Amino acid sequence: MAVNFPQITADQLHPVAGVRLGFAQAGIRRADKKDLLVIALDEGSTVAGVFTTNAFCAAPVTICQNHLAANQGIRALVVNTGCANAGTGALGMENAQLTCRTLAAQMGLQATQILPFSTGVILEHLPMDKLLAGLAPAIENLTAHNWYNAAQAIMTTDTLPKAASRQINIHGQTITLTGISKGAGMIKPNMATMLGYIATDIGISQTDLTELTKTIADQSFNCISIDGDTSTNDSFIIMATGKSGLQVQKGTPEFAQFAAALQSIATELAQLIVRDGEGATKFMSIVVEQAANLTEAKQIAYSIAHSPLVKTAFFASDPNLGRILAAIGYAGVQGLDVAALDLYLDNVHVATQGGRHPDYTEAQGQTVMNQAEITVRVVLHRGTTNATVWTCDLSHEYVSINADYRS
Amino acid sequence: MAVNFPQITADQLHPVAGVRLGFAQAGIRRADKKDLLVIALDEGSTVAGVFTTNAFCAAPVTICQNHLAANQGIRALVVNTGCANAGTGALGMENAQLTCRTLAAQMGLQATQILPFSTGVILEHLPMDKLLAGLAPAIENLTAHNWYNAAQAIMTTDTLPKAASRQINIHGQTITLTGISKGAGMIKPNMATMLGYIATDIGISQTDLTELTKTIADQSFNCISIDGDTSTNDSFIIMATGKSGLQVQKGTPEFAQFAAALQSIATELAQLIVRDGEGATKFMSIVVEQAANLTEAKQIAYSIAHSPLVKTAFFASDPNLGRILAAIGYAGVQGLDVAALDLYLDNVHVATQGGRHPDYTEAQGQTVMNQAEITVRVVLHRGTTNATVWTCDLSHEYVSINADYRS
Repeated sequence: MAVNFPQITADQLHPVAGVRLGFAQAGIRRADKKDLLVIALDEGSTVAGVFTTNAFCAAPVTICQNHLAANQGIRALVVNTGCANAGTGALGMENAQLTCRTLAAQMGLQATQILPFSTGVILEHLPMDKLLAGLAPAIENLTAHNWYNAAQAIMTTDTLPKAASRQINIHGQTITLTGISKGAGMIKPNMATMLGYIATDIGISQTDLTELTKTIADQSFNCISIDGDTSTNDSFIIMATGKSGLQVQKGTPEFAQFAAALQSIATELAQLIVRDGEGATKFMSIVVEQAANLTEAKQIAYSIAHSPLVKTAFFASDPNLGRILAAIGYAGVQGLDVAALDLYLDNVHVATQGGRHPDYTEAQGQTVMNQAEITVRVVLHRGTTNATVWTCDLSHEYVSINADYRS
Repeated sequence: MAVNFPQITADQLHPVAGVRLGFAQAGIRRADKKDLLVIALDEGSTVAGVFTTNAFCAAPVTICQNHLAANQGIRALVVNTGCANAGTGALGMENAQLTCRTLAAQMGLQATQILPFSTGVILEHLPMDKLLAGLAPAIENLTAHNWYNAAQAIMTTDTLPKAASRQINIHGQTITLTGISKGAGMIKPNMATMLGYIATDIGISQTDLTELTKTIADQSFNCISIDGDTSTNDSFIIMATGKSGLQVQKGTPEFAQFAAALQSIATELAQLIVRDGEGATKFMSIVVEQAANLTEAKQIAYSIAHSPLVKTAFFASDPNLGRILAAIGYAGVQGLDVAALDLYLDNVHVATQGGRHPDYTEAQGQTVMNQAEITVRVVLHRGTTNATVWTCDLSHEYVSINADYRS
């Protein structure tokens, strides 16, 4: 029951020169599901990533960080679903390393040139026999045209594959950006989400890409929340192959044009996760304006986005908007003057001077609440910083999905 | 569908000398519901309270704080359900003051001797004509034997009235403590909950009672959470009439005996709120042991207690316990070594050294998960501080209740 989820077809996803993708049905958790993905990158590609801040981070997250730091030139990514390889202790680390070593041997690479990723159930070990047996078939079907299959191969409770593609023109040169993402629950990324991958054929230095990846993540995947649960496996990766022949450098207009396209595709991929949020029936943008700083803007935005009472009211299309005021009030912002803030639902002015706006009518609120997409806007009048968080409602279906996910 | 909720009958609730209670069906939101309560205190009573920290606190909360500070001797409390009088701006303050003035005039008191309380929908104004008209009938039926009716009169989405009563013997003297509470959603009190009232016939100084009220609240109402939503109206009040003739002073064994009884009744009233939590099918105690300090102990306990994924797993009786590790990991505790902590479900050792305990079996986890009452225990091995939070699961019924509450 995704919210305004655009129909994506395989032919809309432009291949990216220097990137090939292969998948397998390894039977890691279920038979008859694509559950293993290999992404191969040509030599000379630049790769940067940001990862979960969860202290219980998964073994592959630690390995990714080590391998990126080793700086040997990342040449392949391997992603499995069905098992998160998180909360798996020393054996979990060994399993992630064994995955890298095995794939590296089959591709003629070093283990440190591989980035491993896992998603699925926590506190269970990877079925290594199945996973390793799936690597050869995945390598066999590596092709530049597998982006749609790749998006399917990383799905867990997702109901739809998530992908986006752009081509931009810089100085007459066509630059391609194509990406995929997954995630529908345990979504409140903090530095990245589980999982987002974007590839481009532009050339960019490691330093510039690393910095840009953080910036892009902060404005896209770090602005979404479904249930406030920060996953153990969140990872967001940008790969630049340089195969277009165009190299961009920070500070140039070309770099800015590329960064804007990257931001746009990352935001689309992040929003797709919310649109397909577990049980989602509404897509809400929580906009906090004129805050004193980013911390308090995000505090208030997340306080609204995480409130089960706000989320169930949206599910019911019930303009029970006092619940939003309560969530603002307990966000923990020091010295917040509630009489000074304004609350809007789309363009309807709901609250001012600590109470209901004199012109506000229940009918106006009801009209907006009936929509599938709604903007909640809080104007604090405390400063000049704005922040946006995208989230969805809390429905019966969310409870059903998460009560049934494992069993 | 309350969890192990003890059957409470009117005759179990001991009257407290110096306290009379009266109620009315004022029709504030619904007809045929007791929705207005007046508690009258004899002269010479001591009263202390703690209130919500929500910045959007309700008008009556502000008035309560002002009237307690005025120190004119509190002689009556007035509580309405159906409307929270929160997010109501200047008119909300006027309405709360008018309620106090009107009740004071009818009882021959000063307005500053009244404490007003409201609970219900936020962002709506009190129907003052109905509320004021209900005061006279409530005063008319004031009696010491109305505790059960009082517990009913403050219910909103509560399915059962919440009350508890104790008699203790100090030096041959019988001391009575009787209290009531309400609340089933928007429950994550911070300094108090919406609403708890305890009366006793012991004598105690204002200074001692004020200090004791904070201590008691921190170990009872401040340890519960249903949905992580801190209400705009939370209030916890202790009233001591002194009518037993026994006066206690801080530092004496008698004071300690009284404080222990008070802690016990407050904890029972707080737990009743969780047992009757909206849609609750399980009662969970989240115990964090050997933390470096109270802040990190509570951070982890609330992170588990608020995780929708943990709560839905408990609803499903599914030992998907990796979700608990994820919640510990994103609690935001600096320098947390996840390999050093231990996780227990009742007495079953689930996780150690960053992964599953070697002896843990799914069957053991399933046995505990099938119970209605479960203790989740996290041992951090970082220090000597412990904290407990009581919470409930997240069920379909929670979504139904909160999607339907207003409409």
